[in-house]
Amino acid sequence: MRLSQLFVPTLKETPKEAEVVSHMLLLRAGYIRKLAAGIYNFLPLGIRSVRKVEAIVRQELNRAGAQEVLMPAVQPASIWKESGRWEYYGNELLRFKDRKGGEFCLGPTHEEVITDLVRGEVRSYRELPLNLYQIQSKFRDELRPRAGLMRGREFIMKDAYSFDVDEAAAKASYKSMYDAYCRIFDRCGLQYRPVEADTGAIGGNLSHEFQVLTETGEDSIVSCPSCGYTANVEKAELRVDTTTVAAPAADLVQVATPGARTITEVAALLGRSPDTIVKTLVFVADEVPVLVLVRGDLDVNEVKVKVALGASTIRMAADREVEAVTHAPVGFAGPVGLTTRVLADHSVFAIEDGVVGANAADAHLVGFCASRDAAGAQRVDVRLAAGGDACGRCGDGRFEFFRGIEVGQVFYLGTKYSEPMRCTFLDAEGVERPMVMGCYGVGITRILSAAIEQNHDADGIVWPMSLAPFHVIVAPLQLKEPTVVELAEKLYSELGALGVEVILDDRDVRPGVKFKDADLLGIPLRVTVGARGAAEGFVEVRRRGTAADERVAIDQVVAQVAGRVAAELGDG
Amino acid sequence: MRLSQLFVPTLKETPKEAEVVSHMLLLRAGYIRKLAAGIYNFLPLGIRSVRKVEAIVRQELNRAGAQEVLMPAVQPASIWKESGRWEYYGNELLRFKDRKGGEFCLGPTHEEVITDLVRGEVRSYRELPLNLYQIQSKFRDELRPRAGLMRGREFIMKDAYSFDVDEAAAKASYKSMYDAYCRIFDRCGLQYRPVEADTGAIGGNLSHEFQVLTETGEDSIVSCPSCGYTANVEKAELRVDTTTVAAPAADLVQVATPGARTITEVAALLGRSPDTIVKTLVFVADEVPVLVLVRGDLDVNEVKVKVALGASTIRMAADREVEAVTHAPVGFAGPVGLTTRVLADHSVFAIEDGVVGANAADAHLVGFCASRDAAGAQRVDVRLAAGGDACGRCGDGRFEFFRGIEVGQVFYLGTKYSEPMRCTFLDAEGVERPMVMGCYGVGITRILSAAIEQNHDADGIVWPMSLAPFHVIVAPLQLKEPTVVELAEKLYSELGALGVEVILDDRDVRPGVKFKDADLLGIPLRVTVGARGAAEGFVEVRRRGTAADERVAIDQVVAQVAGRVAAELGDG
Repeated sequence: MRLSQLFVPTLKETPKEAEVVSHMLLLRAGYIRKLAAGIYNFLPLGIRSVRKVEAIVRQELNRAGAQEVLMPAVQPASIWKESGRWEYYGNELLRFKDRKGGEFCLGPTHEEVITDLVRGEVRSYRELPLNLYQIQSKFRDELRPRAGLMRGREFIMKDAYSFDVDEAAAKASYKSMYDAYCRIFDRCGLQYRPVEADTGAIGGNLSHEFQVLTETGEDSIVSCPSCGYTANVEKAELRVDTTTVAAPAADLVQVATPGARTITEVAALLGRSPDTIVKTLVFVADEVPVLVLVRGDLDVNEVKVKVALGASTIRMAADREVEAVTHAPVGFAGPVGLTTRVLADHSVFAIEDGVVGANAADAHLVGFCASRDAAGAQRVDVRLAAGGDACGRCGDGRFEFFRGIEVGQVFYLGTKYSEPMRCTFLDAEGVERPMVMGCYGVGITRILSAAIEQNHDADGIVWPMSLAPFHVIVAPLQLKEPTVVELAEKLYSELGALGVEVILDDRDVRPGVKFKDADLLGIPLRVTVGARGAAEGFVEVRRRGTAADERVAIDQVVAQVAGRVAAELGDG
Repeated sequence: MRLSQLFVPTLKETPKEAEVVSHMLLLRAGYIRKLAAGIYNFLPLGIRSVRKVEAIVRQELNRAGAQEVLMPAVQPASIWKESGRWEYYGNELLRFKDRKGGEFCLGPTHEEVITDLVRGEVRSYRELPLNLYQIQSKFRDELRPRAGLMRGREFIMKDAYSFDVDEAAAKASYKSMYDAYCRIFDRCGLQYRPVEADTGAIGGNLSHEFQVLTETGEDSIVSCPSCGYTANVEKAELRVDTTTVAAPAADLVQVATPGARTITEVAALLGRSPDTIVKTLVFVADEVPVLVLVRGDLDVNEVKVKVALGASTIRMAADREVEAVTHAPVGFAGPVGLTTRVLADHSVFAIEDGVVGANAADAHLVGFCASRDAAGAQRVDVRLAAGGDACGRCGDGRFEFFRGIEVGQVFYLGTKYSEPMRCTFLDAEGVERPMVMGCYGVGITRILSAAIEQNHDADGIVWPMSLAPFHVIVAPLQLKEPTVVELAEKLYSELGALGVEVILDDRDVRPGVKFKDADLLGIPLRVTVGARGAAEGFVEVRRRGTAADERVAIDQVVAQVAGRVAAELGDG
């Protein structure tokens, strides 16, 4: 492709909307453009990189025995009602009516559709196992889309679904997909970790996320250096400390705390350490308010709260709901004197002389002792894991903390969908049994963001060869020198003939502009053709991300560059 | 791929939902399954054939200099309001609100999105021409989805958009895409005709449809054997016959026509020929009722009515609206005695002693003469072309009539979108001018239906090599004979190694079942491996759609089959 004709609208300025470096570079290098919040156009370079990811995913999934299908984006409500998720899924599920009033949604995931398909076609254990996947545009109406492709509303996903005769076979399918995922992310050139994860709205009881480690990631991960246990903080098992202060150290006394609503403000005002203050949060679980207490320097794990309550939905209370429960402005909630149900984390019981909100404007209570003043509370583990916490798996290590971008997740679903939707088969004895399912997602478009977060420098993107929209850019420096132009054209056409994907920078601009743009776009190999080299028989080759040009003889450069591209792509 | 593992749920019975042969075969051969009205799952064979079409389209579009992008399915209302189509597009545009109340639609086409994208990036004539395309799932909320993939609600389309500096350049882009479309449909093995077409909801003033000729097609086409002019009946230019009966032959007399509402019923009751009866239709144009008269044996062309009225929307009146206009039950409408606006086709003025509805229950008027009894009518050409009509282009030939499936359409848009949306550039003199646009669609999934309508027999599909999900099926007949199994496995792996896409029918079923399924699926080449042939050194090769097996020596069959596949695929 000639760069003069390629639609690559680069930007000199950093766009205001860019929140993280991958977002900024995808915009600046002309890969994507925003249409609406969380909804993007992919420009020619962007869609080429998307197709690279898709091809890798397709090859590895096919190699693992999965078969490609394509399901619709528009799904009827009826099957979501069968699975029970029509009500349960929440506002990310975009629901609408068609012209005849039929209820539909835009598919955020396809468990219902695939289960409906398979139950209609598969009758016998002889037809199992079956693993079907698709690469498709999904829609999730995120409340806060952010960071470009990292959390979009419309995005491309690979989703696969396995159907097996029993748990052992389903676990083998799970393992096979886990392994395929490792090959996929290896080939995408990503530094990642598989981490144990919560199953969330998808359900099931075993799940791993594949997390690309980067400081700009949305997800929080802890890992134990002692035993290697690695998990999303929401899922991480802590060693629970049940230290309890049995006898109160002081009386409960109300003190004035004008305007001090946060832990930091209260600590400062009262001259206390945050770990002596009790954080009181108001949740709404299945539409009933609940107070949740945790030590002031810790965070609450909503997943644990939901499990502890056995609730099917949970959310933070709105301000007016907090005020209705506490009869006080937001910022002064506490467990004392209310009849609302209370969950108290173990950490609260180790505080000797604590501070809690007084359920009155501008007031807190000091001298709080949970075993006296929150005696009716349900004592549970509801805290979020953090760096420094003791590992709950081995009990020895202290967690290290990482941030990550989730690029894939595998779920063991069991019969969560096959039972309610009656997706059954006849076993060898002729007995009807529900199929045992797994599901497996890869965030195709999100991988672009993750790869750039890990592969960039001050000048732009540094693509791994496998995801680069083009492998090579040939940059002739003097367009008025026929020898330069002829040589560049010759290399461009010979590389193309060998299957190398190559851009010819045929624009009549200064060398500096050509170098800057090649760096910004992140093309892995740059072949610079200059007048002196053309006369003396060499060109210069540089691997993006390295500082040095390498002189290569003209008669060797095509073979050497093509060989290098092939070597970096590996055996794909 | 081994057929025992391939997810191909074939059906013995003809599914009740199947309306045409392609629909029936796509279901029976396990290519698609319905999820909801007009919404289908593509199973492994189905998506493979879809990908074949996509690859051909991509190659030819790239060859023509177009560049691939990917735009979102979910589009904000704001840009549709800018173009004016938010109100105008009608109920096929599925509109909805997101969780924050923002208005969006599911894109049935992408003129607004691409124009919004290009106006934001392109400034100068130096950046033009530009031609961008995508292959993407579209949604049109059809009132009556039908015939499987022929008229679905969710379907895959290739849509391209060209941007040029002036009309001449835009017409060159149009021609280039027209030529690319011919190559695409040639390579898809389709018998088709480019026909002049109306521009409908897309707009513009020049358009061609690419019609695959088949009796089950939805579209009506006329072609002049004399001059070659070919057009959709809605667009076809007729030689207008302005024969006029100036002096009435009889008085206007009301006669009883109890229960006779249709032309056929009235003709039978009164013993008249249908071409002496005047058909009176009530339309609603921009919410105002209009009567349209045409000779009883002819049909009205709504597009011409709309143009004649200069209306922006037009529809047939509902029964209650007809009754409000005529003060009579439906079936007895006529122009006499009403103050409603009347359009009368030229054909009505040639009737000497006509029959019209009397605007009274069970009554018609005879002795009708348009120049006396509809003197206030606007005389126009509003009839639909039909076989036998005189060609309006050359005036000599008589139209032949065909039915077709529209698989592609090209539109010259001019500045229909660039003017209201201010998609402008600076020309060489620095003057700001609107870009001149074209748009170009291919119905990717519909091509599968069209190809099967043209390529099938009583046993199943007969794929052209270019669209077949697999090129070859190897069928070993005796799975208990090691020589047969080993030879089949050897051919399967050697063909695969040469890049031939091959199925091994490794199922332990009777030869008759293997042959029937291979025929149903439509795989172009079948290689039958039998015990006798394995012993004597030959296999049998049959081209699907032919009746004869050909004996081929075992040591030649791989090269011969691979060569035949390559030859049938052509130079793609």
